Amino acid sequence: MTITTPAGFRAAGVTAGLKASGRPDVALVVNDGPLHVAAGVFTSNRVVAAPVVWSRQAVSDGVATAVVLNSGGANACTGPEGFGDTHRTAEHVADVLGTSAGDVLVCSTGLIGERLPMDLLLAGIDGAAAALSPDGGADAATAIMTTDTVPKSATAAGDGWSVGGIAKGAGMLAPGLATMLVVLTTDAVVTAEVAEAVLRGATRSTFDRVDSDGCMSTNDTVLLLASGASGVTPDRDALAAAVTQVSGDLARQLVADAEGASHDIAVTVTGATTEEAAVAVARAVTRSNLFKAAVFGNDPNWGRVLAAVGTVPEDVAPFDAALLDVAINGVQVCRAGGVGESRDLVDLAAAREVRVDVHLHAGEATATVWTNDLTHDYVHENSAYST
Amino acid sequence: MTITTPAGFRAAGVTAGLKASGRPDVALVVNDGPLHVAAGVFTSNRVVAAPVVWSRQAVSDGVATAVVLNSGGANACTGPEGFGDTHRTAEHVADVLGTSAGDVLVCSTGLIGERLPMDLLLAGIDGAAAALSPDGGADAATAIMTTDTVPKSATAAGDGWSVGGIAKGAGMLAPGLATMLVVLTTDAVVTAEVAEAVLRGATRSTFDRVDSDGCMSTNDTVLLLASGASGVTPDRDALAAAVTQVSGDLARQLVADAEGASHDIAVTVTGATTEEAAVAVARAVTRSNLFKAAVFGNDPNWGRVLAAVGTVPEDVAPFDAALLDVAINGVQVCRAGGVGESRDLVDLAAAREVRVDVHLHAGEATATVWTNDLTHDYVHENSAYST
Repeated sequence: MTITTPAGFRAAGVTAGLKASGRPDVALVVNDGPLHVAAGVFTSNRVVAAPVVWSRQAVSDGVATAVVLNSGGANACTGPEGFGDTHRTAEHVADVLGTSAGDVLVCSTGLIGERLPMDLLLAGIDGAAAALSPDGGADAATAIMTTDTVPKSATAAGDGWSVGGIAKGAGMLAPGLATMLVVLTTDAVVTAEVAEAVLRGATRSTFDRVDSDGCMSTNDTVLLLASGASGVTPDRDALAAAVTQVSGDLARQLVADAEGASHDIAVTVTGATTEEAAVAVARAVTRSNLFKAAVFGNDPNWGRVLAAVGTVPEDVAPFDAALLDVAINGVQVCRAGGVGESRDLVDLAAAREVRVDVHLHAGEATATVWTNDLTHDYVHENSAYST
Repeated sequence: MTITTPAGFRAAGVTAGLKASGRPDVALVVNDGPLHVAAGVFTSNRVVAAPVVWSRQAVSDGVATAVVLNSGGANACTGPEGFGDTHRTAEHVADVLGTSAGDVLVCSTGLIGERLPMDLLLAGIDGAAAALSPDGGADAATAIMTTDTVPKSATAAGDGWSVGGIAKGAGMLAPGLATMLVVLTTDAVVTAEVAEAVLRGATRSTFDRVDSDGCMSTNDTVLLLASGASGVTPDRDALAAAVTQVSGDLARQLVADAEGASHDIAVTVTGATTEEAAVAVARAVTRSNLFKAAVFGNDPNWGRVLAAVGTVPEDVAPFDAALLDVAINGVQVCRAGGVGESRDLVDLAAAREVRVDVHLHAGEATATVWTNDLTHDYVHENSAYST
């Protein structure tokens, strides 16, 4: 149940030698049609990797036949030479598959500021092309892992069609987007316009609301490929729901596997004037190192939640600080901006998942943003290795 | 050489029993005049502690005779009862000193969301009043410490007048301001208007540019008291320079004593279109957990600097990503957005201080923001204790 679950797709994951660990590091996903519809959403970082520059342009016509992904190197901040490497990668895939380079999307992940070993990568592409299989989705999911500890796949079934996806991402998870590479597939019949709109909508409420460590990546890419192989043209809302379901499933898997984390924290803001205001307040909490460290220590330190909420400018999220309520795992520890139930009633050690509910009492809108706790393992992973 | 170095001030620091550790926790600073000029700058957090609400109002007439400060409790998010506690504190100080409550400023620091033990605090104020001394500045500096490991004092000498100051703050250090309490004194003759302007200017370029952990406090307060006891009216620029010098000195002491830090990091952005743009880019870097963890690991991971720089919106800081230069400890590891000198040439282990220079090549403005690395000790201190 992965990216090759929808009909019309083959995939592969192989070891090209880009990673010192010797683990798989090159993945190939091919859309055998009859449609070759594609849409993409990319990092909003102004410093973007060569493959993002390439793929953003290549997908702009709504058509793609293949995606090549490598771990073991981000090909970011590598100058014109790095862009040349991405171009060569796409040309090589096009030659091997008999398509055109402009229809090949490229994704890379790994250390910033190092050139890719192109001889290894191109040979790896040959191996991946030879290994392409309608059952290859799981191998592809494994080959794109970096500090991920488990491969990530998800599917959703429609009426005679389906949606599948794979994802990688464990650190640098932040809005707009995280260090994530995601490829979604569907065998539904869909136009490029609908694919684009459905993907943007799904991303906005799923991947964009995961903020593991507040750090925005240079390489984030979420792609949707549609083969039309089912022959079914689903209702647009049904397609949107299925793509959002798979995206949400993968986003939760990203949070659950975030670097060094011991808790997944869902910060839900209600009573906001607008959804944007709710998101802004939730993001402020998910970015508080002090609160995240407290959760790691199983300390329901709600004062740090309020201190974070109070940093949001009034024009972004109107609220009265004297009306704020905060509940942690259902215990209302803060009522009307002051002391509520005893913090001793909150048990954070019982489960990995922590629920923080902030009520602004300013309107009707709500939103949830996911994050992780700040742990020794996070510091260790991100100080001990160049990634 | 501390807050009582300028003439006309007495201070004391005593143990009232607010801290479980039994360390000093109540400080009193008295301005014996002849002038009783005062100015204050407070946190920009919308969730503010009761003493901030009180002191902001009390200092608004430009007059104060005393400041009472306690550690062992922030009196934040404690509702109307907490505000009543602050009011009672000011009234008690006024009774003991024979002044009016409206001329007594109050500062608190410690855990958010707990009421202060008022019986202990009021008895502590009696003890502090009895201990007031023209040599009491160092005791006051000690009594306001929380997770600080050393007391912080600084002075600057003018021509027949001087400026002194004490500060506390180790975590929750972030712009606008940090979890810091700072009291500055001068025996210069100065009007309330000049005191206010000089304090704002000094704060803007010193305390506001320290961002240890990106977390903004509910209690931050920086006060300037002027006694006029020197009889000298200094040139305004000379006073501003002295206040800025003392503020900068104390700000550096805050960074040097930040919770769990093993490096002090100065991020300097040059070639910006405006000073605000330079500050915005520098802040983005100082808030990157990934970069800060890399510095802890002595890893000059400049890709994480660029990834952070790229998150700043174009309307905030115009620049071309293809022109960015980054130097770490003087080694230009990134040139024109791509690979520069080898990162192996950078030695981060040699010194506590790390210099990161980012050149935007977009204008002439520059700014420096200080931060710390993200360490195991930071996570430990902020997960193991409610502070």
